[in-house]
Amino acid sequence: MSDKAFQDYYPDDLAHCYGCGKLNPDGHQFKSYWDGEESVCTFTPEPYHTAIPGYVYGGMIASIIDCHGTGTAAAGAYRAEGRPMDSEPLLRYVTASLHINYLKPTPLGVELEVRGRVQQIKGRKVVVEEELFANGVLCARGQVVAVQIPAGMFPKPKDTA
Amino acid sequence: MSDKAFQDYYPDDLAHCYGCGKLNPDGHQFKSYWDGEESVCTFTPEPYHTAIPGYVYGGMIASIIDCHGTGTAAAGAYRAEGRPMDSEPLLRYVTASLHINYLKPTPLGVELEVRGRVQQIKGRKVVVEEELFANGVLCARGQVVAVQIPAGMFPKPKDTA
Repeated sequence: MSDKAFQDYYPDDLAHCYGCGKLNPDGHQFKSYWDGEESVCTFTPEPYHTAIPGYVYGGMIASIIDCHGTGTAAAGAYRAEGRPMDSEPLLRYVTASLHINYLKPTPLGVELEVRGRVQQIKGRKVVVEEELFANGVLCARGQVVAVQIPAGMFPKPKDTA
Repeated sequence: MSDKAFQDYYPDDLAHCYGCGKLNPDGHQFKSYWDGEESVCTFTPEPYHTAIPGYVYGGMIASIIDCHGTGTAAAGAYRAEGRPMDSEPLLRYVTASLHINYLKPTPLGVELEVRGRVQQIKGRKVVVEEELFANGVLCARGQVVAVQIPAGMFPKPKDTA
């Protein structure tokens, strides 16, 4: 696997995401890495991230798939251009649509592994397909349609103090 | 609007959800109510529930839509049977699929309003359509396909201590 997470390449003013921002101390700080053609994110939910007792909250599953999707979109776009993630111009994505199919109840108390694959890159849009496993069992499938951040959404200096 | 939230009818052993469980002190404790034919859930994210600075984290939006969807599914199913939510037999739902379209960046720092509508009830399945507004502006659309909880997922006594 690659040694530096996709999210660790995000510039500081884009690193406050509750899901995956390295500068959000209250957030989950999800980390995504390449593993060959697939991207991987592992995460162990806290005991209180529960749905029905014993199972992981669906909103947490959606959160991992969301952030791992936009991260994989960015990493995939750089890779398609044959340049490293710390090179200019900056490629950073937000979610246009998120679709999750919850196939099986996801057990709480074990590490989850989400594997992603870039399915399509077209202009400013990247489609990422994902699978979430617990104990090696496929529990959810997700699709993220990510789009390059519109210039108007970049934070102004006052937002990043 | 109705005076008691859908989630306040959930029995204690199903009230630990990180999104909407009244017994989860670490969770969001989302509350849903009827407003005529529509269901309503309002929530003000915390400052750290950010995506890019100034905007709400997409995983938080997915979480609200998820819980408000399953809550609306339950309330709608009881209503379709013409009986109150505290009557037997228990009707309680989990998410089979969740689909969010993020139409506009959702501003952080204001109350969000999610409005739901039961689109279909068929056997054990309920489909709920939702719209999320910030400052009266439609920012996201969601669809939840909810299914009645399988008997095997109900918590065992040891899980609810």
